[in-house]
Amino acid sequence: MLPAASSSKALESWQSIAKRTQQQREATIAAVHPPIPDILDLPLDSTPIPKTILTPTEISITESDPVDLLAKLSSASLSSVDVTKAFLRRAALAQKLVNCITELMPQAALERAGWLDSYLKRHGKPIGPLHGLPISTKEMINIARQSCNAAFISWHDRTPTANAHILDILLDAGAVLYARTTQPQTLMHLETSSNYFGATVNPFNRLLTSGGSSGGEGALVGIRGSCLGIGTDIGGSIRSPAANNGVYGLRPTSGRLPMQGMTATMLSAEHILAVIGPLSTSLGGVKVFTKTLIDARPWVREPGLVPLPWKTEAQFPAGKDGSGKRMRVGVLTDDGVVRPHPPILRALSALAEKLKHVPGVEVVPFAPLAHDTAWTIISSLYFADGGSEESSAIEASGEPWRPLSKFILHENKNVKKLSIAEMWDLTAQRDAYRTAYAEHWEDSGIDVLLCPVGPGAAPQLDTARYWGYTAQWNLLDYPCLVAPVSKVLPTDTVDESYVPRNEDDAYNHLLYSPEKYANAPVSVQLVGRRYEDEKVVEAWEYVQGKLGLPWAAYV
Amino acid sequence: MLPAASSSKALESWQSIAKRTQQQREATIAAVHPPIPDILDLPLDSTPIPKTILTPTEISITESDPVDLLAKLSSASLSSVDVTKAFLRRAALAQKLVNCITELMPQAALERAGWLDSYLKRHGKPIGPLHGLPISTKEMINIARQSCNAAFISWHDRTPTANAHILDILLDAGAVLYARTTQPQTLMHLETSSNYFGATVNPFNRLLTSGGSSGGEGALVGIRGSCLGIGTDIGGSIRSPAANNGVYGLRPTSGRLPMQGMTATMLSAEHILAVIGPLSTSLGGVKVFTKTLIDARPWVREPGLVPLPWKTEAQFPAGKDGSGKRMRVGVLTDDGVVRPHPPILRALSALAEKLKHVPGVEVVPFAPLAHDTAWTIISSLYFADGGSEESSAIEASGEPWRPLSKFILHENKNVKKLSIAEMWDLTAQRDAYRTAYAEHWEDSGIDVLLCPVGPGAAPQLDTARYWGYTAQWNLLDYPCLVAPVSKVLPTDTVDESYVPRNEDDAYNHLLYSPEKYANAPVSVQLVGRRYEDEKVVEAWEYVQGKLGLPWAAYV
Repeated sequence: MLPAASSSKALESWQSIAKRTQQQREATIAAVHPPIPDILDLPLDSTPIPKTILTPTEISITESDPVDLLAKLSSASLSSVDVTKAFLRRAALAQKLVNCITELMPQAALERAGWLDSYLKRHGKPIGPLHGLPISTKEMINIARQSCNAAFISWHDRTPTANAHILDILLDAGAVLYARTTQPQTLMHLETSSNYFGATVNPFNRLLTSGGSSGGEGALVGIRGSCLGIGTDIGGSIRSPAANNGVYGLRPTSGRLPMQGMTATMLSAEHILAVIGPLSTSLGGVKVFTKTLIDARPWVREPGLVPLPWKTEAQFPAGKDGSGKRMRVGVLTDDGVVRPHPPILRALSALAEKLKHVPGVEVVPFAPLAHDTAWTIISSLYFADGGSEESSAIEASGEPWRPLSKFILHENKNVKKLSIAEMWDLTAQRDAYRTAYAEHWEDSGIDVLLCPVGPGAAPQLDTARYWGYTAQWNLLDYPCLVAPVSKVLPTDTVDESYVPRNEDDAYNHLLYSPEKYANAPVSVQLVGRRYEDEKVVEAWEYVQGKLGLPWAAYV
Repeated sequence: MLPAASSSKALESWQSIAKRTQQQREATIAAVHPPIPDILDLPLDSTPIPKTILTPTEISITESDPVDLLAKLSSASLSSVDVTKAFLRRAALAQKLVNCITELMPQAALERAGWLDSYLKRHGKPIGPLHGLPISTKEMINIARQSCNAAFISWHDRTPTANAHILDILLDAGAVLYARTTQPQTLMHLETSSNYFGATVNPFNRLLTSGGSSGGEGALVGIRGSCLGIGTDIGGSIRSPAANNGVYGLRPTSGRLPMQGMTATMLSAEHILAVIGPLSTSLGGVKVFTKTLIDARPWVREPGLVPLPWKTEAQFPAGKDGSGKRMRVGVLTDDGVVRPHPPILRALSALAEKLKHVPGVEVVPFAPLAHDTAWTIISSLYFADGGSEESSAIEASGEPWRPLSKFILHENKNVKKLSIAEMWDLTAQRDAYRTAYAEHWEDSGIDVLLCPVGPGAAPQLDTARYWGYTAQWNLLDYPCLVAPVSKVLPTDTVDESYVPRNEDDAYNHLLYSPEKYANAPVSVQLVGRRYEDEKVVEAWEYVQGKLGLPWAAYV
């Protein structure tokens, strides 16, 4: 019997599919006008390059705070077409520099931008709170009638019929979708490398990772090819790239932002919930994104969400010192499992010290509560089917396993095909841990917790193996904001006297030297209790203003 | 080798354990003073009996609205000791009439009541919103250092070390715990029969079931041996007994009331969440219970809960007709799978007709959306381990399977040991169904939905087999209020012309005659969208007042 058409299609090699996909991407980059020249000699630090290639107007637009852009767009002092063109140009350049794009959509974006400009002219008012603002998105977020592969070669011909819920809302609010960004094989790396496109590298140092799994977003926003983008996070996938690229990222509490309409494995697993959230060049960008989505009452269409409006009233009582805030900030510098590298400890310690002098702020140390147990539980729950769904999606095309896919699925001793009874047992352990942590937090009396985003700044490629600092909060489902603070300094020398506590700690310790991590952004994480997303954002707004953060320049 | 002490204990027959447990119960009943005489000739209708045995004061207290009792208790015009004594007496009588108690706690309850009375005298104000009010609880709710068996003989010696979270809050609010109530083997019957105590029967007609699984509560509240009690519901377990006994019951949205500290199987299964909720002789009782629990901010200690305060502002906008309410009420009389019996159809139709004349209320028909699919999904998810945990708990003691345990576990073709992948697939079906239903509801524009609580009033023992009218809303996780409306009337004759649609419908049709269901309460269910618990309560408050409901006397 002759092979049927579909079988013959299935016989296409993964290399051929990847190559075709790359060519399609190149065509979308080439469609940006004026075209961006190829960068023949790729520098270690890509961040100065845009200023040498873009026009002053393009630089000014793309380096603006999205909140300022929105003000100008809604008052017609900037047109959406001009803003979109500028971001398309910088995104095309970003692709050539750090390999962060899966496709640009110049034609559709500029058409929509033009329509929004004429809408504003016609009606004299913006269409919504995101009027005319270009936004980027991780590729796995469904766009109607555009292919969506979630970084699996075998899924190359999947084509959703409808937009993701989140896109419908953002578009209704006036956003312009112009760029889709890279993600790693399995979506379960804290880096971004796939067999479609290879690795997305860090704009600040191409030997380092952009982080992951929303690493295309991280790199694109980091190099200012986007000011606001969509990521997802089940173990650190918004926060690792936000931190590694010196931008803001929010992992909201589950149930607050719309999740329907993604392409990924294990979408129905609810023992550990993935969330969607923003990466942005400003805290204002994070806030307008989140508030716009919640204000749209997404729970009406998506019944898994919780009808909690975005709280606009002040989340902290006034301080007695006239500060307008009374907040107790816990500081956790080390999770007791893997000690962070010197630049992280230095930045946290400097922050904690300065915070003590901020009116209304009380700073207290916060001890970790069995964070190693948290990792055992969450890593046992991630792949409750023993990783079958991931493995099938990889192996269906014959594509090879990327190193970090092997790490998280094959080398992770907690991956096991669970029975329902075993899964219930782990769920009970999870709930007991959550209860114990709630008590621990309550006893501390803190409002928010300042802590590392990872055991170091952006590590060299294929070495991001410790998830503890981010996955901890996925297990607890606490909201987390990532914000830029500093950069790795040559003076952040290795602590030669340090004696590692365990294998993971030793691995992490050996990764570091200030030379290897040169120029990498140093970020921190601010964590709140479940559903206190507004509190976390408001706390950082206050602190950042008082301390003049960040303490480094990223563009 | 000689058997060890623990093995010899394990050899005690289930009959011996059951007998001992009954004797222990009898001792707690006998400890009530003045003692309640044995009722030698048990009547079909038990409800007139209390008036022939209790004192006028006891009758007056136990037949009061709990809201009125609270007003009198907090102003010291009634003492908690007197109120507690009255309920202990009526509960002891209830036990003799309908077999609804697992134990009374006269000594502890009266001590506490006395302490509360002196607290009020000393401080001049009540200790909390439930000051001095006796409450009853389903046995499975943990009480520190008191045995808790959840109706499994093999669990007869389990003794929790701490109170359930809900009890801590209710006790802090001033409640007096005086009675624990029966539940069925597996906790998964819409009736109440166990090998400890046999069947709990309906106060209005002892040939009928009290419903279940919170059937002890239902019967006890129905006969006014309690005015407020705690039930749980994963498929109808609050609502079936509330409806069968002519009292109010609320199945709140999940995540609103505290759940920690129960004794049951499958406590970590989260695909379908059980909830806790009140049964009460008044809607005010339902409201004060729910509001008290939510006002205590249970989410701080129990992180699985959602921090949604109890909304006290009006949930409906003012009507143009000056009514103060503008509400659209959907009416679903038949789920399209099993047609309700004549008294249910009669009551719903009368209600719908009268509702049309209530100012501000708009009444529209509401079509079911594939309720048979809902049952397939939920009944496949209930016992994802193939019922292993239930079976082990039953079989460990050698106790026999009760008929309805066999029905729900052995005769239910959807019970299957699922793999994780199959469970995810069912979860995806659940979520797709929930999304479709949300759209269906949204399209209808209704605020609340009036519908049957079951396919009939309380059925004869061991015949409650159709869960569709209640489990539907567990699958959707919508809040549901049950309220009494009428009673079965001799004029509710069988529709001889009815041709059943399917096997379940035929079974249900044949169950009914007005003689078999004589005197059974007829209740209805009011359903709202997820988290709109306040709206459901407020809607019924309004409607009930306007229509002079209920239209029958129950005491």
